[in-house]
Amino acid sequence: MGIEDRKLADAIRALAMDAVEAANSGHPGMPMGMADVATVLFRDFLKFDASDPQWSDRDRFVLSAGHGSMLIYALLHLTGYARPTIDDIRNFRQLGSPCAGHPENFELPGVECTTGPLGQGVAMAVGMAMAERHLNAVFGDDLVDHHTWVIAGDGCLMEGINHEAVGLAGHLKLGRLNVLWDDNRITIDGATSLSTSEDILARHAAAGWHTTSCDGHDFKDIARALAEAAEDPRPSLVACRTVIGKGAPNKGGTHNVHGSPLGADEVSATRAAIGWEAAPFDIPAGIADAWAEIGKRGRAAREAWEARASAHPKGAELARRMAGTLPADDGIEAHIAALLANPAKVATRKASEMALEALTVAVPELVGGSADLTGSNNTKTKATTPFGPDDYAGRYVYYGIREFGMAAAMNGMALHGGVIPYGGTFLVFADYCRNAIRLSAIQHQRVVYVMTHDSIGLGEDGPTHQPVEHVMSLRAIPNLLVFRPCDAVETAECWALALAQTDRPSVLALTRQNLPQLRTDAGMQSAKGGYRLKSATAARRVVLVATGSEVELAVNVAAALEAQGIGADVVSMPCTELFDQQNAAYRADILPTDALLVSIEAGVTLGWQKYVGQGLTIGIDSFGASAPAPDLFRHFGFTPEAIVPRILERLA
Amino acid sequence: MGIEDRKLADAIRALAMDAVEAANSGHPGMPMGMADVATVLFRDFLKFDASDPQWSDRDRFVLSAGHGSMLIYALLHLTGYARPTIDDIRNFRQLGSPCAGHPENFELPGVECTTGPLGQGVAMAVGMAMAERHLNAVFGDDLVDHHTWVIAGDGCLMEGINHEAVGLAGHLKLGRLNVLWDDNRITIDGATSLSTSEDILARHAAAGWHTTSCDGHDFKDIARALAEAAEDPRPSLVACRTVIGKGAPNKGGTHNVHGSPLGADEVSATRAAIGWEAAPFDIPAGIADAWAEIGKRGRAAREAWEARASAHPKGAELARRMAGTLPADDGIEAHIAALLANPAKVATRKASEMALEALTVAVPELVGGSADLTGSNNTKTKATTPFGPDDYAGRYVYYGIREFGMAAAMNGMALHGGVIPYGGTFLVFADYCRNAIRLSAIQHQRVVYVMTHDSIGLGEDGPTHQPVEHVMSLRAIPNLLVFRPCDAVETAECWALALAQTDRPSVLALTRQNLPQLRTDAGMQSAKGGYRLKSATAARRVVLVATGSEVELAVNVAAALEAQGIGADVVSMPCTELFDQQNAAYRADILPTDALLVSIEAGVTLGWQKYVGQGLTIGIDSFGASAPAPDLFRHFGFTPEAIVPRILERLA
Repeated sequence: MGIEDRKLADAIRALAMDAVEAANSGHPGMPMGMADVATVLFRDFLKFDASDPQWSDRDRFVLSAGHGSMLIYALLHLTGYARPTIDDIRNFRQLGSPCAGHPENFELPGVECTTGPLGQGVAMAVGMAMAERHLNAVFGDDLVDHHTWVIAGDGCLMEGINHEAVGLAGHLKLGRLNVLWDDNRITIDGATSLSTSEDILARHAAAGWHTTSCDGHDFKDIARALAEAAEDPRPSLVACRTVIGKGAPNKGGTHNVHGSPLGADEVSATRAAIGWEAAPFDIPAGIADAWAEIGKRGRAAREAWEARASAHPKGAELARRMAGTLPADDGIEAHIAALLANPAKVATRKASEMALEALTVAVPELVGGSADLTGSNNTKTKATTPFGPDDYAGRYVYYGIREFGMAAAMNGMALHGGVIPYGGTFLVFADYCRNAIRLSAIQHQRVVYVMTHDSIGLGEDGPTHQPVEHVMSLRAIPNLLVFRPCDAVETAECWALALAQTDRPSVLALTRQNLPQLRTDAGMQSAKGGYRLKSATAARRVVLVATGSEVELAVNVAAALEAQGIGADVVSMPCTELFDQQNAAYRADILPTDALLVSIEAGVTLGWQKYVGQGLTIGIDSFGASAPAPDLFRHFGFTPEAIVPRILERLA
Repeated sequence: MGIEDRKLADAIRALAMDAVEAANSGHPGMPMGMADVATVLFRDFLKFDASDPQWSDRDRFVLSAGHGSMLIYALLHLTGYARPTIDDIRNFRQLGSPCAGHPENFELPGVECTTGPLGQGVAMAVGMAMAERHLNAVFGDDLVDHHTWVIAGDGCLMEGINHEAVGLAGHLKLGRLNVLWDDNRITIDGATSLSTSEDILARHAAAGWHTTSCDGHDFKDIARALAEAAEDPRPSLVACRTVIGKGAPNKGGTHNVHGSPLGADEVSATRAAIGWEAAPFDIPAGIADAWAEIGKRGRAAREAWEARASAHPKGAELARRMAGTLPADDGIEAHIAALLANPAKVATRKASEMALEALTVAVPELVGGSADLTGSNNTKTKATTPFGPDDYAGRYVYYGIREFGMAAAMNGMALHGGVIPYGGTFLVFADYCRNAIRLSAIQHQRVVYVMTHDSIGLGEDGPTHQPVEHVMSLRAIPNLLVFRPCDAVETAECWALALAQTDRPSVLALTRQNLPQLRTDAGMQSAKGGYRLKSATAARRVVLVATGSEVELAVNVAAALEAQGIGADVVSMPCTELFDQQNAAYRADILPTDALLVSIEAGVTLGWQKYVGQGLTIGIDSFGASAPAPDLFRHFGFTPEAIVPRILERLA
């Protein structure tokens, strides 16, 4: 025994309040309130070895209530992770410290994912639990056998995405997922009763979850509840009744302790109240030792696992998948060769399916799915059978009508490692999961979004379903590749490029309507982002820059111009971000300043000025309309008849 | 009696299958499945008068499952609305027909809102029910006393936003809201059991709803359930057990009837099965007459209401609010005069609160709120007390941590009319409600989004909370004004401009950090979108174009340039969309081609090329970081010391 439970937890409280005080910024309430629960979790339940944060069979711990970041920084430091050091914690929320305002997966091993945007932590944990069950089914208990633990707050549970995540986890019977809810009845605005009257346990039970409650400050009761959660075959919600800012005698239990420093007086009062006499950032040796022991608790299990894995026939394959290394041949080269031999006039969503048929055979870690648009997104292949409680080895997820939940789950799967997730919806519903796409990018995760029906070309469904601003507004997200291929060959290239990105996500914007195969070579041209698909025959006066379905149109416009003796290049630009990464000479060669540059894309023109300067931007700066696609393209001026005169006018 | 119930419903079925067949596109399954429920609703419950779709005390009917648009087109036509005519229906999904693929509020009176993006119809209905209760509390039962009815499908209920909408409605005890769930157990991908195992009634009960079920093809049972829903003081969910595509003998009950025409053979088989002998688009006279009578059912009530309203002391004020006309004085002019007399160095979020203090006194139809960031968004004023079951006359909504639900509810409130909603969250969480912002714009609704913490200037919370791409990506949404004011005067102007937009929404992007008051005149300069805040003193060689917090920086950069004898204008550009609407001469005067144009905005540079051409774009094309704001501005190059050399280099 030695150190009593309370002292272990108070070490977290002290670090949290000291760090927030030093930064004069942060959220002490949650770490102080959940310190007792977290202590029991790390001491008795969580399988981890602080000396090897990358051990693939570790339990995953997700702090969904990311504003309480000092909780995890304190836990990692106390249990002996190499970082954060005490100096890192002293520099909480300062430039260069890995102890950022919210936990960032790329700053600290042990921070399994970036949290702060509420609700997404739980939803990413669902993805982690899915990946665990899948890999368990493929590799067996000896290699993959762990749990996913989450600490979530009222905010996480009130967000819409929580409904999607909870519904998905219940349906998939993810019994290894346990969510510890910080039931403190306080939100930023005040008491939870200001804005909600929900029976949260009943709601989870309705979704097939096991639920239980505990006194979040009674160590025995916490341990009882966590044991119950760990054992139940359903996903578990544990309502941990806590006092926000527990320990602070005056501010504890109020929303004043949520997101502001306690202040010197209340810090003093708290130290007195909990009997903490050490200096700020100092942990008494006995307590520090006890925590260090906790950090070593999993070492033997980890070493036993390593022995098993090195002897296991599937150990090397698991290691390959966990490292994120693709198989030597992803199958795309042969697929492109076949396309060049037998050109396909298909929609790029269909071309994507054709590429996926090859990829899902060659790359067994690909796990696909769709938010209830399987037949429209063309995301299911012969090699991918349904994933679910009947067969976790399946590689196709019926995510239901849950775009945000799907995207966040994919982030969780990618973060877990061992699988590469892709999932589909209509491009316009990128809006529904936009912040999860952003989190893929922030977290440097290889997630592939298959976004079909990418323009007015979808036709009759009308403006609510027609993306106009989406392609450009996705391009605005840093560290995200947006691909809009023009034919079956480019689609295959873009798929290969997306899978080759080990540290960033990709969006594939794909058509509903058929497109001719324009490419006749296998040069992986899309890798340059933009390239000359067709050179001017007559003296070049015009360069047409187009993407996706508008490349065919650009080819036709070029032909009409050439017929009048006006030379026109056609540049296909499937990925502006990759084009931006080419050297200046290449870019200047493709987009010369001595010709009229014309962009053609069935979306907003805002942003194209970056590429065509004072040239002509042809697009749609309003919402679409409901009609057959050919009528719409005519109506919105996407025909050679409408475009050629505009070019001639500018040349004159 | 005369016509039997079944025949009334079959008229809907016939029109739905004929229109989809003619268009060779559309969704027959839902209208055919819900025809019986809709018949009972319109015949026995819904308060409406087809001859006056704008009657303000009508019940609101929302087809949340918008893909089933032929259901509402059939109902409007059959009950005698002026539009759609039978020719409109013949032209279903064709260019120019008001019978668009999904129902559009701007195409047809009687279509209360635009639906199709799943889940948002229910959430908008929550807003309508909120507006009804608010106006009822203010104007009394004689003037405002109606219900909101919704038809929703499995997709609507599975979306995350449904959780937020259901939670809000239960908490607010919106007993006038009744949701009829098309419980057909089919989604696009197949059986609902593929992706969900939720007990939907239990989930609603957990949120404080009344729930009941009925056989959706038994007219008596439907009427019983709807009566129960209408009477219960809680919001009601009625599970209507239906067969999708009811009437189609071979395809009915399968997902094949969801989103594709039945095909000629199945249409014939359906006609035979239901005994429908009329030609396509023909409604037998007896049935047509019976439906026309239903359309007149509410006429007496409407006339009685009009008599009451014209005699009522508050009738004129209600009419003003419902017309969307602002009071003669919105209070902003006096507020700006006071600011000019006593300049305020405040964050623009605080400046927004100051403007709102004046506005909420002068404009009683303003109803504010926040998604649990009241103290951060500065959205609550002294004039606005909490809205809720204890006081529906209150004008401040604690929306909880429900950004998407809030935005959709605001759309519903605006669509209902009589209130002007505004609501706050952090700008980065515009991502969470982006499609609802888009729907504000598509629907031409005056909704004001108060988005604070608008850049890295928010400091320590770090990249997940720092908008980088958001301002520009919101500018990409058509028919939306994005304001980013630079000081307290501009903030007041932008608020006045936002409220003056009767047919489009606005986003106010506001700082966390303090800014000096730069404006010294009352000219409502923001109305031009961009204007010269400061003219060059030396010969002009540079024009600095900045927004929000970077305008102060631009002023400092200009001073540094002028000190070196380089003349520099400073242009403040609070709203690019309004600037785009100015004439060419004005725009050329502000952004002359004979100077180096330099944009400065703490966000992505993509898009600024539209305004500065080949000039210099200063921004952030990566995610932010966690640190105090001054450190971040220095780190990312937002100082005169970093910017002036870049300008000098370009001038050289």
